[in-house]
Parts: sequence; structure tokens; C-alpha cells
Amino acid sequence: MSSERIALAVDLGGTNLRTGAVTRNGDVICSRRAPTPAREPWERTVDVIAEHVASLRSEIAQSGIEIAGIGIGAPGPLDVRTGIVFSSPNFPLWFNVPLASAVGERTGLPVRVENDADAAALAEARWGSGAGVTDFIYLTIGTGLGSSLIINGRAWHGVSGIAAEAGHITIEAQGRLCGCGNTGCWESYVSGWAIVQRTKELLSDTGRSPQWSRGALEPHIVADAALAGDTLAQRVYQETGRYLGIGIASLVNLLNPGLIVIGGGVSAAGHLLLDPARDELHRRAFSTQAQAVRIERAALKEPGLIGAAAIVYSDL
Amino acid sequence: MSSERIALAVDLGGTNLRTGAVTRNGDVICSRRAPTPAREPWERTVDVIAEHVASLRSEIAQSGIEIAGIGIGAPGPLDVRTGIVFSSPNFPLWFNVPLASAVGERTGLPVRVENDADAAALAEARWGSGAGVTDFIYLTIGTGLGSSLIINGRAWHGVSGIAAEAGHITIEAQGRLCGCGNTGCWESYVSGWAIVQRTKELLSDTGRSPQWSRGALEPHIVADAALAGDTLAQRVYQETGRYLGIGIASLVNLLNPGLIVIGGGVSAAGHLLLDPARDELHRRAFSTQAQAVRIERAALKEPGLIGAAAIVYSDL
Repeated sequence: MSSERIALAVDLGGTNLRTGAVTRNGDVICSRRAPTPAREPWERTVDVIAEHVASLRSEIAQSGIEIAGIGIGAPGPLDVRTGIVFSSPNFPLWFNVPLASAVGERTGLPVRVENDADAAALAEARWGSGAGVTDFIYLTIGTGLGSSLIINGRAWHGVSGIAAEAGHITIEAQGRLCGCGNTGCWESYVSGWAIVQRTKELLSDTGRSPQWSRGALEPHIVADAALAGDTLAQRVYQETGRYLGIGIASLVNLLNPGLIVIGGGVSAAGHLLLDPARDELHRRAFSTQAQAVRIERAALKEPGLIGAAAIVYSDL
Repeated sequence: MSSERIALAVDLGGTNLRTGAVTRNGDVICSRRAPTPAREPWERTVDVIAEHVASLRSEIAQSGIEIAGIGIGAPGPLDVRTGIVFSSPNFPLWFNVPLASAVGERTGLPVRVENDADAAALAEARWGSGAGVTDFIYLTIGTGLGSSLIINGRAWHGVSGIAAEAGHITIEAQGRLCGCGNTGCWESYVSGWAIVQRTKELLSDTGRSPQWSRGALEPHIVADAALAGDTLAQRVYQETGRYLGIGIASLVNLLNPGLIVIGGGVSAAGHLLLDPARDELHRRAFSTQAQAVRIERAALKEPGLIGAAAIVYSDL
């Protein structure tokens, strides 16, 4: 054990910043948490990370454990090769931030930064539903629709070092306007945002106002209503699941994956979402490819911190 | 030269079967051609290939050139790992044909079979527009829309050993019915078939019947009319090009490629197709990714035979 080299991991969220030491088995042996100074200049965030790292190092110094490096899971878009975060809606003052080099200079450790969807996918590849699978597609349905393509055990970054953006493939060329400026993106139909939007539209169209719809609408509230038998809520998940399947069918025809792992908070709706998605997949994709793919829920409920550690281990 | 190991190549078309010896530089040093016995049992095609191979071997026997193996470019769908051709519209009696093993038994040579789009892409990777590029997307616009994903210099085949089917990503979820049974496939909007279809629809809608439209419609006839200033024909290419750009934008957001190579007969229309495609790409894709990708026409006009040879060289 004393010769084990382990990863320090930084889960950089818009609200909280968590830092931890994570073993090769995915066990968090110690961690720190602080509010993210998201609305301050980026140097403040680097300060917090450097303080956490110093504190964790002194805690584990006695054990003789060596540190292999620091992995940071950050909201994108970012360039993994340079470790520069271009910008992020949660960090209004951030613009072309040299996050990896700044943290590296402060800590003297090698640093790698990945998009948080890629970090979560690497964690699934190592410790979750993708364990033992070299190639799979990871989708994370939260407020938006994030994704990662794991090819030969690594996250695919393309020529610009950018994460896969499956949420922004076009599935309805003349469809809904997306936040990215395109029309008809998959994310405009499959995301927490889209579920709330579709619910509001159906409520307005039908003139209904059931009890569950009267507070702030959240995807899980609609899911609970669907499970309790509300037909409008069921229709929301049915339609969202169908659109999930439309995009999955495109990915299946294009990439012929053996596995698609679906994580993110909205995926907790489980069969409400996945049953219509599977139906639509088999309606739309070539049968050989459709039969070859398993669609599974992510095994890791909170992949943030261990995802950041998986970035480091994927390099060792 | 006497120690050079070269490839025998088989270009298995629905009409003609060509076989040749192709050097590492892509030069065809000798070749044979025969009508493809496409409507006869598959064993007849193997007979023709075996006869060609024997004849080519005796022609090159004197030179001391060794043969590395046989590459066969065949219409799909097929499984590259087993060399089995599942079926093909041009070969009505073919069903799960063990093409690689049958040709291997008859010739005593190692045989690899690839989808013809992948073979053409491998030729572009070695001798054409993709030379020196390890990762790119190849699209071939003929009657249909074929594709290949070259990743780390190899054609991506997924878990079932099947070629990338970019023509069957959905771009209009409620759109045109595709021959594959899905609705709204990219191929239904971008292909020789789609160009003829769109032309007929526009002629019918407008009640026009210009001279060029009175014979059998072909994509190149519409292209010539567009170049001669016919506004209806220009609109056909404008709309087809826009749809080409819609699908390219999806591929660019998903895979962030540095290069997309476009081949196939319809691509001869050049800027008629590519100008609106590039406009649509920049309208729809993320700017970093859109700016990172070059869209180029294929360099090789007839990649069939040398594509089949490239299959062999990609293994050496």
C-alpha cells in the first residue's frame, strides 16, 4: 500500500467545489468541500483548490502514499489538451482560463482537466456500468443533455480537444430553438429543461392545473405524477423518451456501440424514459445495430469527485 | 522492388467486377474486368474472383513480387471481422455470404472484406485528400449517402463489425420515409435519389417543364441546368446543400473532426452543393468546432479498385 500512487480529484461545480484523495478502487479516503467562488475572478477558485490540495497532502503525508496527479472535472467548453476553460455559464467572469497550468504552478503536480460529462464517463468506464467495456457512449440528462464518447478506454476529444456534444446533433431541422443558437437540437427535446417546457405546454394546451403542477415544476415532480398515474405527466415522459430514442438510433446507426450508459438526475425516471426510448430505437435503427446495443442506467449516482480521479487514472 | 509485397484488390460492383494488383503507391500494375454475375448464386462470383486472381498471379509471377493479401470492397451491409456479406440490394440471392473465407480457400491468400465506402475512405487516407490525417469523416454521395469514420487511420466498425451509417442519422424526426424504414434519415435529403425526387416535386409544384427535365432525370443533368442558370435546378442544389450542412453540423458537434472528405458522383457538383453546406454548418455548429473542420472533395475519382487495395495496406 505504501507504494500506491493515488489521484487527487477536484469536482468543480457551479455551487460547490469538492476536492478529495481517491484510490484506484474509487474509494474517497479524505475530502474537502467549499462553496465555489463562481462569481469572482478565476484566481480565487485556484486559491481554494490549492488550499484544499495542501491540506489533503498534509493529511495523507504520514501514510507514505504518493500522489500521481490532479484531475479536475469542470463545466465546459474547455480544451483538454491545454487545460484551458473557454467559458461557462456558471462562471460569468471566466474567459479562456488556464486552469490546468495555474493549478499545476501552485501545487507542483501534473494536472489534467476534463469536461464533467467526460469525467463521469471515465468513472463509469472504471468503476461503473462501463467497467470492462472499451467503447461506449455516455449520456447525462440533467438540466441539459451532456455526453461522452469512450473509445479505446479514452474520452474522444476531436481535433480541438473538445468533448463530444451529442446534445447538439439536429433531430428536427426545423424544430425548437436551442440555447446554442441552432434549431432542433436533441437537447431541446431531451433534458430537464425540455421536460419542464413540454409539461407547461401540455398543461396550457389542455387547460389542466393538477395539484402537482402548481409549485415550481421540476422533472422529478412530473416523474412522480406520472408514476402516480397522471396521464399528462405520463405523456411528457413518453414523448421525451421517444425523442431520447430518436437520437440514440442516430448514434447507433453511426457508431454501432455495444453499450450506452445513461446518467444524470433526469435518468432517475428509469423505465418512464427508457421504455419508450428502446421502442423508438428498434423502430428507427438497423436491426443488427439495435440488437447489439445495451442501454443501461449509470451505476454511479454522484460521479463528480471520482470522475475527476478517473481522469488521472486513465493516464496511468 | 523484388521484395515488395503488394495487394490484390477486388472492386465488387453490382455491374462490373474489377480485380487488380496495386502497389503501395496506389498504382494499378495490371487488372482484369468482367461483368458481375450479380443475379446468380454467390459461388459464381467467387469463381470469377478466383480466376482473376490466378490470372494476375501468373502475370506477375516473373517479377518476384510477393502478394500480401486480397482486399475486397463490397456493397454492405457486411461484417468486416468475419468477412460475411449479410445481404445487398444488387445481389438478390446473397444472404450471409462467407465471402472472405470462400475467396481465401480458393486462393490460399489472406482476404479482408470492407464496405465500399470504407474502402474508398481508406484510399483517401492513404493516397487522397486524407493523406497524413489520422482522423476524418468520409461521405460518398451517389444514389445513396454512404460514409466512413476513419479513426487512428482505421475504419470504425463498432461492436458488430459494421460500417458507419451516417446516411441513416435522423435529421427530421417526422420527415421523409427512408428505404431503411426510418423517417427523416439524412440520406432521404442528401443523395442522388433525393436530388431527383426534389426536382420532380418542384417541377410538379411549379408546373414547369424545362427542356432539361424531359428525359430521364439524373443529378448531373440538374447540376448542369443549375450551372446554366435555371433557378429551379439551383434551388434543388441549394436545398440539398443545406441539408448536407445540417448533417455535417451534427457530425461536427458530435465528433469535432478536422476534415470531412466528400466523394461520390453527386459531389462532382462541387460548390453548388458545398457552398450552402458550409453556410449551414456555420449557422448550426459550435464556432470552435465549425472553424476547425475543412470540408474537401475527394481526390480520387474512382476509388473502387485502389480502395480495395488500401484495405490490405491498412493492415500491413
